[in-house]
Amino acid sequence: MGLTSDQIFERPAPGRDREARTVSFQVEPGRYRHWQLTVDGAVATLAMDVDEHGGLQDGYELKLNSYDLGVDIELYDAVQRLRFEYPGVRTVVLTSATDKIFCAGANIRMLASASHAWKVNFCKFTNETRGGIEDASANSGQAYLAALNGTASGGGYELALACDHIMLVDDRSSVVSLPELPLLGVLPGTGGLTRVVDKRHVRRDLADYFATRPEGLGAPKAAAWKLVDEAVPRPEWDQAVAERAAELGSRSGRPADAPGIALTPLAKRREDDHIGYRHVSAALDHQAGTATITIAGPDQDPPADAAGIQAEGAAFWTLALTRELDDLILDLRTNELELGTWVIKTAGEPARVLAHDRLLLDHAGDWLANEIVHYLKRTLKRLDVTSRSLIALIEPGSCFAGSLLELALAADRTFMLSGTFEDAGPDAEPAAVTVGPMNLGPLPMGNGLTRLQTRFSGDDAALAAARDAAGRSLDAAAAERLGLVTFAPDDIDWDDEIRIAVEERASFSPDALTGLEANYRFAGPETMETKIFGRLTAWQNWIFNRPNASGPDGALRRFGTGQRAQFDRKRV
Amino acid sequence: MGLTSDQIFERPAPGRDREARTVSFQVEPGRYRHWQLTVDGAVATLAMDVDEHGGLQDGYELKLNSYDLGVDIELYDAVQRLRFEYPGVRTVVLTSATDKIFCAGANIRMLASASHAWKVNFCKFTNETRGGIEDASANSGQAYLAALNGTASGGGYELALACDHIMLVDDRSSVVSLPELPLLGVLPGTGGLTRVVDKRHVRRDLADYFATRPEGLGAPKAAAWKLVDEAVPRPEWDQAVAERAAELGSRSGRPADAPGIALTPLAKRREDDHIGYRHVSAALDHQAGTATITIAGPDQDPPADAAGIQAEGAAFWTLALTRELDDLILDLRTNELELGTWVIKTAGEPARVLAHDRLLLDHAGDWLANEIVHYLKRTLKRLDVTSRSLIALIEPGSCFAGSLLELALAADRTFMLSGTFEDAGPDAEPAAVTVGPMNLGPLPMGNGLTRLQTRFSGDDAALAAARDAAGRSLDAAAAERLGLVTFAPDDIDWDDEIRIAVEERASFSPDALTGLEANYRFAGPETMETKIFGRLTAWQNWIFNRPNASGPDGALRRFGTGQRAQFDRKRV
Repeated sequence: MGLTSDQIFERPAPGRDREARTVSFQVEPGRYRHWQLTVDGAVATLAMDVDEHGGLQDGYELKLNSYDLGVDIELYDAVQRLRFEYPGVRTVVLTSATDKIFCAGANIRMLASASHAWKVNFCKFTNETRGGIEDASANSGQAYLAALNGTASGGGYELALACDHIMLVDDRSSVVSLPELPLLGVLPGTGGLTRVVDKRHVRRDLADYFATRPEGLGAPKAAAWKLVDEAVPRPEWDQAVAERAAELGSRSGRPADAPGIALTPLAKRREDDHIGYRHVSAALDHQAGTATITIAGPDQDPPADAAGIQAEGAAFWTLALTRELDDLILDLRTNELELGTWVIKTAGEPARVLAHDRLLLDHAGDWLANEIVHYLKRTLKRLDVTSRSLIALIEPGSCFAGSLLELALAADRTFMLSGTFEDAGPDAEPAAVTVGPMNLGPLPMGNGLTRLQTRFSGDDAALAAARDAAGRSLDAAAAERLGLVTFAPDDIDWDDEIRIAVEERASFSPDALTGLEANYRFAGPETMETKIFGRLTAWQNWIFNRPNASGPDGALRRFGTGQRAQFDRKRV
Repeated sequence: MGLTSDQIFERPAPGRDREARTVSFQVEPGRYRHWQLTVDGAVATLAMDVDEHGGLQDGYELKLNSYDLGVDIELYDAVQRLRFEYPGVRTVVLTSATDKIFCAGANIRMLASASHAWKVNFCKFTNETRGGIEDASANSGQAYLAALNGTASGGGYELALACDHIMLVDDRSSVVSLPELPLLGVLPGTGGLTRVVDKRHVRRDLADYFATRPEGLGAPKAAAWKLVDEAVPRPEWDQAVAERAAELGSRSGRPADAPGIALTPLAKRREDDHIGYRHVSAALDHQAGTATITIAGPDQDPPADAAGIQAEGAAFWTLALTRELDDLILDLRTNELELGTWVIKTAGEPARVLAHDRLLLDHAGDWLANEIVHYLKRTLKRLDVTSRSLIALIEPGSCFAGSLLELALAADRTFMLSGTFEDAGPDAEPAAVTVGPMNLGPLPMGNGLTRLQTRFSGDDAALAAARDAAGRSLDAAAAERLGLVTFAPDDIDWDDEIRIAVEERASFSPDALTGLEANYRFAGPETMETKIFGRLTAWQNWIFNRPNASGPDGALRRFGTGQRAQFDRKRV
């Protein structure tokens, strides 16, 4: 019943700070410590029930359903499993196991004592999970109903904002609030500001008032201002929640009786300089500051039909690979801050990658095929917002085709070997890339465009040429001409060019690289999602870094001490 | 010949730090120290010729046409005067008075020694000026031609990016570059990253390479990658520039022979607690941290026609008011960092405001009427990106109608008195607001929407209702019902409500307020302009604030010392 610290934290990596424990993102419902997941026909209930003593680190208690990364890791796991393991679920009711308090948001003592990098990483992951909730609703037919049976403050209210419909109990004491600014001197960091005005269309002057009022607003006013969808008196609560859950679910195209597939534990090996899964591996070079990630293509042809995907379940290549890549991204982002450059390689048969892609797209109406494609989409989006330089290497034997070509298109820079390596045999095939249907729509970025559209933003002819080349195996010269790769050195220059690019990257300011990449990766239009990751997050990071928040006399550090924060009053 | 420090800096304000000199934004061509402005028919040439010893502060020399705020204040002045004083100019050639170097960008020693607030303010103003160049081209028929007769690096290249067409001399030594990241550990801070990918549509991986290459790219490759529009050999330079200037100008609808109007010096009085102009005044309360800005409506009816506007020239109310407000915003932003809340009032006859608006819009085809409206638009945009809390007070005797209603719509919160003040006579008129044509299109925000559209984003019915009310004098109850004001207290509550709102604002973290407002003010779509002010600027501010840039061992501080920066290698 619950997860011990030893289970959340993997063993310390040898040769590193004894205190630096490795955070694991792998969990399962039987080990949840903070959530109760129950499924009743088409309605699942996810009730927050945070164990005060179950914090990921020492030094704080998770009172009032406040959360830290560990709580959110379980939430992420539950949202994922609901999509894959419970295809019959049409509505997820997000509520609290305790009346009076839904959720008090991110734990303040945790935030106050956390390093800057931890805070930023934590906010990014929670943002991704809330985006995943909206994705489940938009693309999976699983609606989320926030049933606020008590106060939802700060991140608690932001969690509700990610849901389709918000009900707040009208009991004269429960409120919704965003107290971050007045109490802590920071912003609501998980999309709150953006969703209030851009999703719920609260008028901005009312939103301003709301975000400066630590005591929040009760149900009647919150409903009048559109901060919640309805205010429900306590006696009518259970019936109203049940009715709304049924109504939301009635709009879903989710299958009534499909069996789910089990998201079985990942086979993962983690050492100081290596992380290995079935299809994905990473070589960690702490000296050079790099992680070299290699993704293996399918070692067999795909099954014949959707039933075959279902039969393979979590072992189906695309799903297995995506789960491994997802876990690796989270692991490296959280545990390996000094590995600033990720070098991405693939190895395998391009035809088999394309065959798996085709199977999924041919059965796009199948619930499981649909889930797998959207999960791959979300995982690639996670890469897009990762603060690491991404360099893709396309070599002979690689399989950057279709879904895996997205990895190269997500990279900041791509090198493709022109010809073959000198030591290869005379029959060696040169490196090739193939544009496939997966590159032309099903895997959009957060800005709503495909990576190809973003890459050729404003250059329709180049985009059309890349599209026209779909299905053809392209050598380095063709790929360079089409603008699919950055540079195409030959064997003589390859090693030096890569070495220089990687060493150079490691010599630059890590912060400036993060800013550069956060701007260049999102050319073109902005969406609510990119605004949350770009505009809101950047401002929050700035504020987190300012003495007025995180200095010894700042609001975040002084919260709960009885002392008022001392502000440098200059407006910047 | 040039401006002395005494002229740029106004006298020290009494009772404040003797070193704290007040920066003035008022200048005129006869006093330029850094630019040569020549006009020859339809072509003006603005040649950068920075006086090394003309820096705004001590401690750095403006070598290689590098710039500081003083240089940019002159540029802003020139761009403004070209629009108002030279209606016949159709092309502005931006070049350097010295071959080999166009502009080396912002002065590094200035940046390295500047306070965080100064850096942020400096970048904001330079961004606004570059946006103004694009506005002149888009809305005034004055095209800008960047004639790079030598190297344009960093901010120098970013200045070129704001132009319609970029020519780079092909002489084997002149380059364009963005060396900020590799040399200084910061970002190109004046829109460079955004314009490279979103305006010039440079492919993002090439843009990435370019921004990590301190030596930049020469003309042939820069042209091939779309970083410049053409590479021109030195012998053909003068003729090519002249041809291109003529071509760009040929697309303009600018009048051939209209006389300009003189932007005469503003009558300004500045004291420690008061700034006064003809129509605008500000009471500065350093204790409370507020500036109370009062804008007087027109004291007479407008002239009958466009010729009348021309005859009044700089004295025409809308233009005079806009110039004063523009100067006041810049003055307070730069010189009064601790006045965190601006309380905005108006006083005058709403009918006269609306009559001035109508005259301008009835003659929208007139070059001067067009200029005035766009200048008002730009000035209101300056307010939108100002990091101060804006509170509008609508009281009896105020004239928040049409163009002046935009000030209330720009505010974070608006209070309107319901009824009259108790001490007013029995015949006193209650406060009123009027929506006018100026609120329905001519004054869009940076996001491309009007302030009303932004306010009612996603609520078409509310927007339609506000539109339908246009032309009617609305009392507090009507304005509140229509969502045009935030709160409408009566005389009994008025003083307390305002006092509490202002005091409360002053008690919050200044940084968190800046972040909150930067998010709430830009609901709805994003544009290149909002991306520059929101996404890029926020990341740059974060980076400026990080030890890797601005710490004693950071790249910005170490530049030019011969010592390499010491980076904390953690990626955040």
